[in-house]
Order: sequence, then structure tokens, then C-alpha cells
Amino acid sequence: MKNNDGHLIIGASTVNSDLLYKVGVSVPDPIIYFKISDKEGVVVKRLEYERFKKSIKDNIPVFLPQDIVENSCAVPDEVKVLEEIIKKYKVQSFEVQKKFPIYYADLLRKLGVELKIAKGDFFPERKIKTKSEIDKIREAVRTAEKCMSRTETVLREAKVDNDNYLVWNDKVLTSEALHAEICFEAINNNSTAVNTIAASGVDSSQPHNIGSGPIKAGTPIVVDIFPRMNKTGYWGDMTRTFVKGKAPDKIKKAYETVLKAKEKAKEKIRNGVKASEIHKLAVDILDKQGFTTGTKDGVFYGFFHSLGHGLGLDIHENPIVSTKTDAILKTGNVITVEPGVYYREWGGIRLEDVIIVKDNGIECLTEYNEILELG
Amino acid sequence: MKNNDGHLIIGASTVNSDLLYKVGVSVPDPIIYFKISDKEGVVVKRLEYERFKKSIKDNIPVFLPQDIVENSCAVPDEVKVLEEIIKKYKVQSFEVQKKFPIYYADLLRKLGVELKIAKGDFFPERKIKTKSEIDKIREAVRTAEKCMSRTETVLREAKVDNDNYLVWNDKVLTSEALHAEICFEAINNNSTAVNTIAASGVDSSQPHNIGSGPIKAGTPIVVDIFPRMNKTGYWGDMTRTFVKGKAPDKIKKAYETVLKAKEKAKEKIRNGVKASEIHKLAVDILDKQGFTTGTKDGVFYGFFHSLGHGLGLDIHENPIVSTKTDAILKTGNVITVEPGVYYREWGGIRLEDVIIVKDNGIECLTEYNEILELG
Repeated sequence: MKNNDGHLIIGASTVNSDLLYKVGVSVPDPIIYFKISDKEGVVVKRLEYERFKKSIKDNIPVFLPQDIVENSCAVPDEVKVLEEIIKKYKVQSFEVQKKFPIYYADLLRKLGVELKIAKGDFFPERKIKTKSEIDKIREAVRTAEKCMSRTETVLREAKVDNDNYLVWNDKVLTSEALHAEICFEAINNNSTAVNTIAASGVDSSQPHNIGSGPIKAGTPIVVDIFPRMNKTGYWGDMTRTFVKGKAPDKIKKAYETVLKAKEKAKEKIRNGVKASEIHKLAVDILDKQGFTTGTKDGVFYGFFHSLGHGLGLDIHENPIVSTKTDAILKTGNVITVEPGVYYREWGGIRLEDVIIVKDNGIECLTEYNEILELG
Repeated sequence: MKNNDGHLIIGASTVNSDLLYKVGVSVPDPIIYFKISDKEGVVVKRLEYERFKKSIKDNIPVFLPQDIVENSCAVPDEVKVLEEIIKKYKVQSFEVQKKFPIYYADLLRKLGVELKIAKGDFFPERKIKTKSEIDKIREAVRTAEKCMSRTETVLREAKVDNDNYLVWNDKVLTSEALHAEICFEAINNNSTAVNTIAASGVDSSQPHNIGSGPIKAGTPIVVDIFPRMNKTGYWGDMTRTFVKGKAPDKIKKAYETVLKAKEKAKEKIRNGVKASEIHKLAVDILDKQGFTTGTKDGVFYGFFHSLGHGLGLDIHENPIVSTKTDAILKTGNVITVEPGVYYREWGGIRLEDVIIVKDNGIECLTEYNEILELG
């Protein structure tokens, strides 16, 4: 009998979340994961063998290369291991990820194996979070909130000097100093936060700009924090925007409008709604208040990113909430809701929560409140 | 005329160091890099366009998708962009990385493009570091040394309680606390250190075990620190092994032998020597003192990893210094030299420096001294 429903991953689970999802063990060097009908297994090097035997998810069998290729003098390489798996399990085809390496793809095809590239998700079940996964994401969201609280504390403690710059710990407060404070707090909570955004002034008008240099009073400070828990690999994600001192009216109006877009979008989310409709709802609210989207001299203004994204073992995963998708939100999806507006003239505002889609609404995992002006 | 010497990468430079090497800009979302004869370019999204224009290496032309696919109503997707590049530059073949995604590979082949998978290095010139690269690695090595110095300070400050545990800051000192201290120091020096090893006791006998739990006096503490500089993306890497208080004689002997293996290996390295010979030299020194290698009950003991690896934009890159390679070391290679011995009965010892291969010897970038026992 030929087997026709195999799954194959060759990769490192630190950068391949489908693999991490399956095996539950973080490993920086490539391993082989296969599932052929009801036969499942991972092939790991000796160095990782004991750790995998102890920690692997769902009791997936763990093999050494020499367990697969028996009676081999030297430790067999991954090519020999793949050849033997195909022979032993009579593999006819494998489903692989879009990013499956061409090197192994050519090798397998030469051996007569048909490769089917996953059209959408490799493991569609990843989109529906289990109770255990939700607990892990909740922990990560709590961690993000602790980092946000630290940021808010620093901004509140800061004084404003005669040139309108923030001063904290006897130094002018910079984006870099906020990045470091957030990073410390993340570490102290068994997580890692890199590429944290703490962008003020014009930097805040570019959604991907992490911010640099001194921070002034009266301008928006966009703080987007996404720690990954060291033990579980699950991500938290949240954004708040602050102004030290008084905010100009136009910033206040932008803040209120973005907040409204976030809350109204959350009200509309439930099992069965189209993701694109939720995105459009947010756009409508922003448009109605004059926060329209377009380009000027080749630079985007307004709201020009997705309203949200799935959150789990990847910081950005399906379902994506945007106009470009035909995704239907389903009970058990965990997604961000993060409208924002960005204008080169005065900066940006973004607010982001994490929610679970439920049958008749949502559960919001983010509990952090919204305050624009910090005294 | 058909063009037959193209290079193509589709990926994110945060995880694709060949790409980072070429463009010099860190980007978490996939971009397209191509070089066809003397035509070179990157295609990036609007969100990244300004940043690339400003910071790209060697003035490589930066394109938006709509610059490539002209007169397109919507923003063209990467498939359309690839089609247009092939047509416009009459591409007949592309050299691609081993890890080039099967999805794009199949697409390009369908368009009649031949894909040549790089046999060894995609950009072989990466192995020979320029002066500017060496400066960046030196900075990263200095940063690793600052983190090591912090670790040594903590271990020196620690007291030993009646049960032989280390106590620091009124708490029993753990591997986790050392990880955090190292991480703080890395952040304060504009770098990121994750998966840092600070493993004591039996944990130290597993080279990949980062360590956990309380630390005792009289047992080896292997500290392996590899920070990546936030701005440049270059890595530092170093290992020292400490014992708090007095070390038993067998640990002293192992330490002296590993130290000798490291220094003798460094003495032998120069332009033109075989990497495998350097590895064997270290093995011989260890063997001669009784630190032999093998397996017992399925667990390795002795010296069972590579003596060293190239260091640059990847933490592990070519040339690898082991018995399995036929690499010849060349002037301008930057490599680690890190012999170690590991025994489940008492733990492990590893010492690691970073060196530059020169015409007639080496320059050692690591300046940190070797002390086993900390009072």
C-alpha cells in the first residue's frame, strides 16, 4: 500500500512555528518532523535526543538518525534519513509548507515523492486556540501589560524641561531608554521583547519605526510591546499611545476616534463575521471623522495597515483582519484589534487589544485602560 | 540576449543573513533581492521604502512593486513582480539559496527559469571579512566581554551558604538570575543576548543546556554569551568556565587541558591550514590527558562538538572547524576556537575565543583572561 497523506517539515522550531506547534520543543537546529497516515515522528540529533524524549508534545515518537537508518556505520545524514523514511513508510506524497527548502524539495521529487504545497495554513487547527493555548497567550498579554505599566510609570515620573523635552533620571528621556526599560521588564517576567516600538513625534507617523532620540511633551508617543514568553513561545501584543502633558485638540480628536474604532470593531466581532467587514467598519469610523487615507508625495497617510492579525506562536498569523482577506472569524480565534492613524505633520495614534472570538461576541484579554494625557 | 547569471533572494533580512549582508538593512517582512548581470535591485513595500532608500548598502537601487510592474491599477503582488523582472531582464536562470521557498521555486520554473541551488556558500565572499566587518565583530566581542565581566562580578560577590549554595542579593543565585544579568548588560550595550548559557553542575555537561536552578560552589559554571548588536546585526561569542571557591583537582586538570587545547589550536591557525587539522590537534591534546570521547548509555562524553565556527551576521557560519569539513582556513576568516569536555559525573568545561585568520598566524579579538576559581 502506498501512503498518500504525509506531512513533512524540515526546520528549526525557533523560526518555524508550525513545527513548534506540533512538537512543543524549541530547537535552533533543523530537525525532521513527519506524519504518514497514523505514523508520526521526529528525527533529532543525539545532542537534542534526551531533551525531546522528555518534553515532546503528545508523546510523538523521537528517533535518532541511526534508529531510522539501521546498521549504518557513521551517523546517517538527513538525505539518507529521508530516503529511508520514504522507503519504510511507502510515501507517495508529502504536504509541505510554502517555505519548504528547494534543496530538499528537489531531492524528494527525484525520489519520486509528490510534494503538495499547502495552499493556506499548514495546520489549519492552529487558528482555533485550545484552552491551554489561551492560558499561555493570556500570560503573554499580562506580561505586555506589565511592560506597558513600566513605560507609563517612567513617562509619569518624567519632568518637562524648558525646551519641552522629557527628563527622567537626570537625563533627557529617549526612545532608546524606553526600549531598554521595556526590555528589562520583559526579562524580569521570563519573556523577550525585541523591536519594541516607543516612537514619538514624526517617528510615530511611521507604524514600523521603533523610535529614536529625545521625547518631547505635547506629541504622541506610540508604545507597541510584543513580548514572547521564553518557556511557551507564545506572544503577547499591545499598543497604547500617550502624550506627556496636554495634548493638542487634533491629537485628542484622533485619539478618541481611534479608540471608538477599536471599541466598535470589538463590538461587532463574533463567530461567523467576515474579517474584511470588521476592517471596513473601523475605516468608516475614521473616515467619518476626517481621518482619511491616501498618499502624498509618495508617503502614506491615514490608516494603511491591517486592523488586526492572529496571535499565537507567531506574532502575525492567520486570521488577518484586513480588506484583502476573505477570512471568516471563528470561535477560538485569538486576534489583535489595532486601528491607527498616521500623519507626517503631527505623528500617529494606535491602540491595540487582544481578543478571543466567541460564539456571540468576544472576550477581551487586554485589561489595560486607555489614557492619552499623562500628567 | 538571455541573462544567465542571476542571483535571487526572497526573504526577510532579520532571518536571512545573506540578504542582510547584501542590503545592510534589517527588515522583518519578505523583500525581493535580485542581481542579473550588472543590474541589481531590491523590491520593497511602501512601508519600508524610505528607510531602504536612506540606508541601503552600496547604493543598490530600491524599487516599489509599482516601479517594476508599470501601469498597474492595484499594488502588484510578488508573483507579478517576479514575472515582470524575468521578462524585463530576460532572465534564463537564477542561483538561489538551499532554503529558497518551494512555492516561489515552482512558480519560477513554470515561467521557464532554471534554478541553480548554491552548492556551498551563496555569497562565498562573506567568509572573508572586510575591515569594516571586523570592526563590527570587535564591537560585538567587546560587548560579550562586558556581559562576561558582569557575570564574574556577580559570582565574586556571591557568598556560599551552609548548604554550599551561592547567595547573591539575599537570594540563592540561580542560572536564571545570571541569564537576566547578562541580558541587562547586553541591552545596556545596544545588543540582544538570548539563549545565553549559564549552566552549572550536571547541566554544564550538556553543551546546549542553558542551565536552570540554584548554583553550588565547587562545581563548574559554563558561561557562553553571544550578543547580537542591534544596529549592525553582527554577533559576538565567548565562553568562560568558573568555579566558585575551590575546584576539585579533576576539574582543575580538565580546565588546564581545555585551555591548552585552545591556545595550541590558536598557535597553529594561519592562512592555508586545514580546519580539520586544527580540530584534530585539539582532540589529541585532550586525549593525551585522558579526556577521551565516546558514548555511554546513549549519552556522549568527552569532546563532541566542532572546535569552532565562522562568526559574522550568523552566529554559526562558514568556515566550520571540525573533522567533517575539508575547509581551508584563509586570511580574513573570523572564527571561534572553543574546545570543551563534558562528563555527566562532574559537569563540563568550555573556553571560547574569537580570532581573525592572518597570513602568518592570527589576531585574537577576545581579550578576556582565564580564571577558573573565583574567591
